[in-house]
Amino acid sequence: MCTVGVVGLGLIGGSLALDLKRRGFAARTLGVEADSVAAEAAHTIGLVDEVVDLDTCIQEADIIVLAVPVGVAVKLATQVLDQVKDGQIVIDVCSTKEQICREVQYHPRRGQFVCTHPMAGTEYSGPWAAQPGLFDGRACIFCDSEESNPQALKTIEDMYAVLNMRPLYMRSNQHDIHTAYVSHISHVTSFALALTVLDKEKDEKHIFDLASGGFSSTVRLAKSNADMWVPILTQNHDNVLQVMDTYIEKMQAFRDAVATYDEARIRELIQEANKIKRILR
Amino acid sequence: MCTVGVVGLGLIGGSLALDLKRRGFAARTLGVEADSVAAEAAHTIGLVDEVVDLDTCIQEADIIVLAVPVGVAVKLATQVLDQVKDGQIVIDVCSTKEQICREVQYHPRRGQFVCTHPMAGTEYSGPWAAQPGLFDGRACIFCDSEESNPQALKTIEDMYAVLNMRPLYMRSNQHDIHTAYVSHISHVTSFALALTVLDKEKDEKHIFDLASGGFSSTVRLAKSNADMWVPILTQNHDNVLQVMDTYIEKMQAFRDAVATYDEARIRELIQEANKIKRILR
Repeated sequence: MCTVGVVGLGLIGGSLALDLKRRGFAARTLGVEADSVAAEAAHTIGLVDEVVDLDTCIQEADIIVLAVPVGVAVKLATQVLDQVKDGQIVIDVCSTKEQICREVQYHPRRGQFVCTHPMAGTEYSGPWAAQPGLFDGRACIFCDSEESNPQALKTIEDMYAVLNMRPLYMRSNQHDIHTAYVSHISHVTSFALALTVLDKEKDEKHIFDLASGGFSSTVRLAKSNADMWVPILTQNHDNVLQVMDTYIEKMQAFRDAVATYDEARIRELIQEANKIKRILR
Repeated sequence: MCTVGVVGLGLIGGSLALDLKRRGFAARTLGVEADSVAAEAAHTIGLVDEVVDLDTCIQEADIIVLAVPVGVAVKLATQVLDQVKDGQIVIDVCSTKEQICREVQYHPRRGQFVCTHPMAGTEYSGPWAAQPGLFDGRACIFCDSEESNPQALKTIEDMYAVLNMRPLYMRSNQHDIHTAYVSHISHVTSFALALTVLDKEKDEKHIFDLASGGFSSTVRLAKSNADMWVPILTQNHDNVLQVMDTYIEKMQAFRDAVATYDEARIRELIQEANKIKRILR
């Protein structure tokens, strides 16, 4: 039982604080939230025991979780490590890992930092979006874990075990390549789909009336928050760009097959795409 | 209470037969299925009271539902209308409407044909995918309904009311424009996403391990069946092509903003896409 301090009481930070308290991992939870409206909401909902300032959080928490957009987390990581004492642990939960790992690489307290990516979420954000059970059954990636102290790593592994997450281990640069393919590109394709439909369907009632379950699920991620996604796309620039180029090529191949009424080629492309069934339910 | 004959016992035809019988609209349901394995399955599951041949279905059913891929339905519509007697009704449930409406336009029994698109489905196909309640709460589009006899139209409106569908009315060409934006393009973007990921992630275990809920929902439609989608994309050629071109433009705009680290422009695009929240839950 320990004190967990969460910096950033949004979807991820808020959900994490909720379950760590409910499930008895944390005796006490502290929250830091720069936005006063969100701070008030987190207090009202009761996401944490107390909303405090960053200095208080750093002084009192055994584990400090950085759950802010990755652009902010990169700066905050060093700043927080500068202030912690022996035995305290700092973790981040961001969606891109190479830059934040590079940032703390030579910090004298690097061993007290554990770099994690709990792969869970919804298209909603802010303290109102936090929910119990968000992480159950999902994967949590630990990056460059050999650079964390074994004891700090063990504590955080135990913490994610309480959240029922499956641990995976990889290098931060490998993480960023894989997530570009399996997470980042699907956000970009949803944004582009929403832009296309909003651009062409001037009559919003038609979109509402005709939106099938298929359209809704494909465009769902287009509701995702810009504060979170702008830094992800720029920090993971090289990988994201390469995936987008491949994606545009595939789309163009599909377009050309449709343009020429090439039924055999359209069938071939669809059946190739169907192979995703082998992997995903 | 009447006899409903369903030609094509897949996801849509099978689900429709199930609920019309369960809910008392049909006293008796007949099914026609060209594929012998699917016919056997439909019989085993009990999707219809009897699996019969097409001629028997046309002789005995009061309402004949064409629930086959649109390429087949276009040919079958005329053939079935040629054989029906006064009082019988023929409907189709396909995803593209302009061509099938044009096909039957001057048929002497055009009044007995009702052109409908119940907008429901999943990414699965075949009799095994049929399920009760598939249509509840979704929209059903009636196309060119003024060309159907008022009595035939009324009967089919009542039938879809039993399935708890919201009726919408539009011209078949308008239908095809709107569905290109709100349904067809999201299938193509999912196919392209699956192709991209399968092409680049040679290690399928990574896809499985890392696939977040977001990726799964965005790529879900890539499991859709080629037999159904090849004719949709070619029959709705002009509209689909125009939407694909717009989509590629939007994707390219996004790509260029990422390529130049233009954070303001990425933010602008994401926030524009976020407007889909105004329309869809």
